Amino acid sequence: MTALRSYVSGRWQAPSVEGTPLHDAVTGREVARISSAGIDMAGALDYGRRVGGPPLRELTFHERALLLKQLAMHLQGHRDELYELSYRTGATKFDARFDVDGGIGVLFTYGSKGRRELPNDTVYVDGPVEQLGKGGTFVGQHIATSLRGVAVQINAFNFPVWGPLEKLAPAFLAGVPTLVKPASQTAYLTEKLVELIIDSGLLPEGSLQLVCGSAGDLLDHVTEQDLVAFTGSASTAQRLRSHPAIVRHATRFNAEADSLNFSVLGPDAAPGSAEFDLFVKQLVTEMTVKAGQKCTAIRRAFVPAERMDDVSEAVHERLARVVVGSPANPDVRMGALASLEQREEVRRSLKALMDVGRIVFGDPERVDVVDADAERGAFVSPVLLRADDAGRAEPHQVEAFGPVSTLMPYTSADEVVELAARGAGSLVGSVVTGDTDFARDVVLGVAPWHGRVLVLDSDNAKESTGHGSPLPMLVHGGPGRAGGGEELGGIRSVLHHMQRTAVQASPKVLGAVTNRWVNGAPHADIETHPFRKSLAELRVGDTVVGGPRTVTREDIDHFAEFTGDKFYAHTIEEAAAANPFFEGIVAHGYLVLSLAAGLFVDPEPGPVLANYGLENLRFLTPVKPGDELTVTLTAAQITPRVDADYGEVRWNADVVNADGELTARYDVLTLVAKEWPQ
Amino acid sequence: MTALRSYVSGRWQAPSVEGTPLHDAVTGREVARISSAGIDMAGALDYGRRVGGPPLRELTFHERALLLKQLAMHLQGHRDELYELSYRTGATKFDARFDVDGGIGVLFTYGSKGRRELPNDTVYVDGPVEQLGKGGTFVGQHIATSLRGVAVQINAFNFPVWGPLEKLAPAFLAGVPTLVKPASQTAYLTEKLVELIIDSGLLPEGSLQLVCGSAGDLLDHVTEQDLVAFTGSASTAQRLRSHPAIVRHATRFNAEADSLNFSVLGPDAAPGSAEFDLFVKQLVTEMTVKAGQKCTAIRRAFVPAERMDDVSEAVHERLARVVVGSPANPDVRMGALASLEQREEVRRSLKALMDVGRIVFGDPERVDVVDADAERGAFVSPVLLRADDAGRAEPHQVEAFGPVSTLMPYTSADEVVELAARGAGSLVGSVVTGDTDFARDVVLGVAPWHGRVLVLDSDNAKESTGHGSPLPMLVHGGPGRAGGGEELGGIRSVLHHMQRTAVQASPKVLGAVTNRWVNGAPHADIETHPFRKSLAELRVGDTVVGGPRTVTREDIDHFAEFTGDKFYAHTIEEAAAANPFFEGIVAHGYLVLSLAAGLFVDPEPGPVLANYGLENLRFLTPVKPGDELTVTLTAAQITPRVDADYGEVRWNADVVNADGELTARYDVLTLVAKEWPQ
Repeated sequence: MTALRSYVSGRWQAPSVEGTPLHDAVTGREVARISSAGIDMAGALDYGRRVGGPPLRELTFHERALLLKQLAMHLQGHRDELYELSYRTGATKFDARFDVDGGIGVLFTYGSKGRRELPNDTVYVDGPVEQLGKGGTFVGQHIATSLRGVAVQINAFNFPVWGPLEKLAPAFLAGVPTLVKPASQTAYLTEKLVELIIDSGLLPEGSLQLVCGSAGDLLDHVTEQDLVAFTGSASTAQRLRSHPAIVRHATRFNAEADSLNFSVLGPDAAPGSAEFDLFVKQLVTEMTVKAGQKCTAIRRAFVPAERMDDVSEAVHERLARVVVGSPANPDVRMGALASLEQREEVRRSLKALMDVGRIVFGDPERVDVVDADAERGAFVSPVLLRADDAGRAEPHQVEAFGPVSTLMPYTSADEVVELAARGAGSLVGSVVTGDTDFARDVVLGVAPWHGRVLVLDSDNAKESTGHGSPLPMLVHGGPGRAGGGEELGGIRSVLHHMQRTAVQASPKVLGAVTNRWVNGAPHADIETHPFRKSLAELRVGDTVVGGPRTVTREDIDHFAEFTGDKFYAHTIEEAAAANPFFEGIVAHGYLVLSLAAGLFVDPEPGPVLANYGLENLRFLTPVKPGDELTVTLTAAQITPRVDADYGEVRWNADVVNADGELTARYDVLTLVAKEWPQ
Repeated sequence: MTALRSYVSGRWQAPSVEGTPLHDAVTGREVARISSAGIDMAGALDYGRRVGGPPLRELTFHERALLLKQLAMHLQGHRDELYELSYRTGATKFDARFDVDGGIGVLFTYGSKGRRELPNDTVYVDGPVEQLGKGGTFVGQHIATSLRGVAVQINAFNFPVWGPLEKLAPAFLAGVPTLVKPASQTAYLTEKLVELIIDSGLLPEGSLQLVCGSAGDLLDHVTEQDLVAFTGSASTAQRLRSHPAIVRHATRFNAEADSLNFSVLGPDAAPGSAEFDLFVKQLVTEMTVKAGQKCTAIRRAFVPAERMDDVSEAVHERLARVVVGSPANPDVRMGALASLEQREEVRRSLKALMDVGRIVFGDPERVDVVDADAERGAFVSPVLLRADDAGRAEPHQVEAFGPVSTLMPYTSADEVVELAARGAGSLVGSVVTGDTDFARDVVLGVAPWHGRVLVLDSDNAKESTGHGSPLPMLVHGGPGRAGGGEELGGIRSVLHHMQRTAVQASPKVLGAVTNRWVNGAPHADIETHPFRKSLAELRVGDTVVGGPRTVTREDIDHFAEFTGDKFYAHTIEEAAAANPFFEGIVAHGYLVLSLAAGLFVDPEPGPVLANYGLENLRFLTPVKPGDELTVTLTAAQITPRVDADYGEVRWNADVVNADGELTARYDVLTLVAKEWPQ
């Protein structure tokens, strides 16, 4: 049997020893061997920093995002190869899709979000410009720049494809090279994944490395520019968090640990109601998908005290229909645990739980399986426990990382919040109810202990992705026992890989750093109308000044008549004067906007294609009849698209009156062609 | 001499032993004694959680912000008492202002930002609603809720007033009670501060506790709901970061450690230039303010190799004019270090630095002082070193926490970036230059290693707050050696004290959780026009539907003529059709907005006072001549002001055509009276 290879320092490397055998979870046969002996860990980190980082950081966020999209499409064409290997981990086809398609989905989401929510640049601007002095010569703004190290990603055995991809996507988008270290048990699947990625040739060399086997002295070499992300047990998370190098360098450390996630059935949901069925169905799904080996699975199921019997019965009935056995058999609904060792651990945990709960369904020691050997394969029955005293400690502390859940009673929203909190920090909770007040009370009550909370009801049941599915646009992680980390959550996890820096400077210099025009900076070209310039010619700071135009009482009357907007402040002198903000009739804000456009627009056909929106509009000084308006429109940010022949231009519009007072300030959003024939 | 008291569990408590003496930094005389013996640390945490948390969390962000403002005003009236005690720490009047007024300034900033940037509610909504399904029945959004623990704040000796206040303000605003543990040496000043705060009666009982003396077993009792924030040495930061309870509970730990901050003089700044003088002046200020005992002080001063002599000379000349001595003497520019122990430590560090650099100014062993005894007081001379080999390790690693800096040469922007990075993570760097390209290159180059970077030039010199001043609106903290933390930064540090939770639900339930109207949720009252309702009556979800109104070609022509906006897409059929987004002439976006207002406005005088802005406008489907527009305006968020008789209402506006396609969506921002006579 050959050993899994690592991909480090630009080449595939076999270990220098034979390695430890890994076994098929279903048949018990050896699948591969694994060892990282002979891998130069310090060299791998150095290679990532030196070779991987620079070309990756040269790409803009949009270019990196496009590569993630292309990678997703490439992997989509190779899904079957990943599914095939997946069966050996004990996963059914459904489980494999959860892992493989889920991982590819994360790439697609980041491929899309990276282009929609990040600039086409290498520097991210975080938050607004802050005025640091009254004179406007000294301003501040936060930027985020790529860390110059490597994202070390230590993954769990249960998601050998999704795990690496959900960590790679935000790191890559942030411009930080990745080094993946999969859990040994299912590392052969991650090896295949990395092989597919490397062979695609899509990612810049050095942006992805793989270490199969133990991490060795890898962590001894991390610095303040590296990151360590870990998914796995709470105890290992604690050990890594206090690793001397991580502590010494304050290395960013993110952990997702398995946790005692809860689900609660609302007091409204009687047997026969849609929510009752949703609760039972979701609980059984969470127990059996991946044979319950999900950090997000429901470990604690709280139900109204008077429904304990109904729920036990309904769950029992559904679990009885779950076929366990070889993933190759299409009738099989639940496969094997990842290894015999995992089964031992589940049985050990079950013993502790059985001290306080009695078994409603399943036998920890035996299970009927189809097309497989129940002892050689790591099979275990789903086990539902019932603990009528929810106050006992074990169900809130002991996690059996398999198809195991405990039913417990509650009598009020306050009590269930208190019980949920006894998990001391969890990844996810769910509330299944049609009662909005109960939902609100539980969500806000449990939120401080949870990274994600799902409210499932008949309104969203069809579209709901369920309790157990982390989504790339939402934070995945929880406080305390769940590791205290945050992954995914859209662009949040990209920024986790970047350093936030407050920059203080004059508007001109701040603009040069952020590549944007900042209020107070000098204007660039004010000779040529900027609407005559394509993206190839337009520069940040290019400006047109239009006006003045006098706004007359007739203009206001006419606008009210024409648009139908006869709001009293524009039409009734006394009512307007009685308003605390006006001294008499004022012009409509929309009239000011419309006239300003009339002053800054260059009407001839040209590279400006459309006005697609407007942001941050504030009406400041009211415009009175007789006021003269002048508008200054300045190109503030230019974002060429990587996959179109146009891009976005954000303009700063300032409308002032004859006294130079700002009457309105806003951002105009336009689409402008990259090229335009002169 | 009496011992300092602690304020825990609702009362002032003296230690159960005599305590360790604290000495006046100037005279060496005993000032007070200190010990935390007898203080029940677990009880204090429990009291904070049980008594302090609940009433604080009942207050809205605006109510908490208003209390911070009132507290700032209260302390402003007691500044002299704090200044007076401050002299005993060795601080001059200028230093004391930096500490006291700086701290009060933080309260004012959070008092203001809390009301401008947070909702008048107890839940913060973080980021937009995410569509999780195509049908719109399943959506997600992040909320932040107050952690249910205590913010344990361990402060440094150098800012006994600013330190506690800059940590209290964001914790309080977040709804989290504070427990302050000041550094012993200057704890008498913090004790006075806390006494002033407690006596004011402004803050809810339990929201602020004080432990004078050692932390004892305090940290053993922290949980996943508590936070620990530390300011002090890098080595103590490491010890606390790996404290077993902090590791076990993944307790949020934030550290700010002293660091090897740099300042660089640009290649453009010849002697006699404004920037040359600014650099020299700033360096001397940073060396001497607080006798150099600032985490943010300049430890490494990089200058172009050919300017080493000029800069040494200019700095020497200025330092020679610095009068050292008793803070009571008005001529004194630099006071004493905080203690004789600190002086010993500075002298020890200087020895290491002198191995690679030679002294340009000052003598570590002696200094002339006025009105004081140079040996009994903790006086030390400012010391400027010069290390002509910038490649040596010591100046980048050894920090003398006193009036000490090292001059080093550089020859290119790349080299200075590499040198700055050798600090392995710093709080702040500054670039003094009139060369925008050099500024940009250095800022972006050093950003991954710095929490704040200042570019100082003749444009902003007058308003600049300088290298050493953290500002409440900007992040204070740095990666790596600087502790890896982030404090201040406006609302960012408030959110650090809250748990971010992704909520997945139907629009109706999400809206109930966030107290906002979410697209797709049912509308509430659509009978009464919502412009007829005061804040007392208006509810989230109240709606008016207006229209339809047909937009004719004549309307478009007229609008173009009236406003002057004759952009080709609205006026020239062939040019409009040639545009990639339109099939022919389309209505102006501003026309659509104006007509929509005409459809939703209720014109009669009423509680709606003004339209003060508009946000998030997107034009989606183009409006063609003949299209019929219908607008739906829904009250989406209601924010009564705590200090005015009106508040803000954010409305969601949807404009659709006859086919139900969305042509525009935006938020209308209005001011509405709290009450209105019927």
